[in-house]
Amino acid sequence: MSNEPFDYTACMDWLEQIKWDADGLVPVIAQEVGSNDVLMFAHMNREALSRTAQSGQAVYWSRSRRRLWAKGEESGHVQQVHEIRIDCDNDVVLLKVRQLGHEPGIACHTGRHSCFFQRYEQGAWRSVEPVLKDPASIYK
Amino acid sequence: MSNEPFDYTACMDWLEQIKWDADGLVPVIAQEVGSNDVLMFAHMNREALSRTAQSGQAVYWSRSRRRLWAKGEESGHVQQVHEIRIDCDNDVVLLKVRQLGHEPGIACHTGRHSCFFQRYEQGAWRSVEPVLKDPASIYK
Repeated sequence: MSNEPFDYTACMDWLEQIKWDADGLVPVIAQEVGSNDVLMFAHMNREALSRTAQSGQAVYWSRSRRRLWAKGEESGHVQQVHEIRIDCDNDVVLLKVRQLGHEPGIACHTGRHSCFFQRYEQGAWRSVEPVLKDPASIYK
Repeated sequence: MSNEPFDYTACMDWLEQIKWDADGLVPVIAQEVGSNDVLMFAHMNREALSRTAQSGQAVYWSRSRRRLWAKGEESGHVQQVHEIRIDCDNDVVLLKVRQLGHEPGIACHTGRHSCFFQRYEQGAWRSVEPVLKDPASIYK
């Protein structure tokens, strides 16, 4: 074995090509494979994205709890990752996922398929998607 | 006519229900009606969102140029808005749009359909979507 220090960054070029913001985060859009529905929006830091790529399951950075957040760790509604994409500016991640643990998939903590369930209608926001499962029975 | 000052905010409840960030902005995901492809990611301030809702065409806030940016003002690739949604936290907007001016639609300044054309493959980012039109002929 070499006594040279292991060059961690040499393996991490793809991570360094991302333009991390001042907090070391990047916004992430999670989109369902097949339906192409936009499920949710969250953030990742380097470790979250690295773990997501390695494990094939979505790991985010929770800004409110200030810790890594393996999607589904409480609810069981994990996201199996099919593709990871970045945009033209290298500062937004698009994750194509299969939303597991319920059929149809539940990505939102309100028990809905998608977090984007409020639609603008004549000057007001209206909930237009059904609750698929009572959140009280999802988070015990 | 009344001499009462016009209560602008009374008509703007839906705008105030959005959790604007410290810069008065909200992130926006633009998604294509029909294909459900995620086209791009940008930001809006109150005026941009208000104009988008009123005009039915996407108006963003350009953070780099620090001004309102009517999508397509240079390229002609305007976005006709079909739906405006917000997420469960009221802090992300999802815009469902028809991408006009070219068939198939071009949302990216690189001349591609979507800004999310770089895919993670074995530790590197690879461009996997074709350029539909030379940017030099889009932006004269």
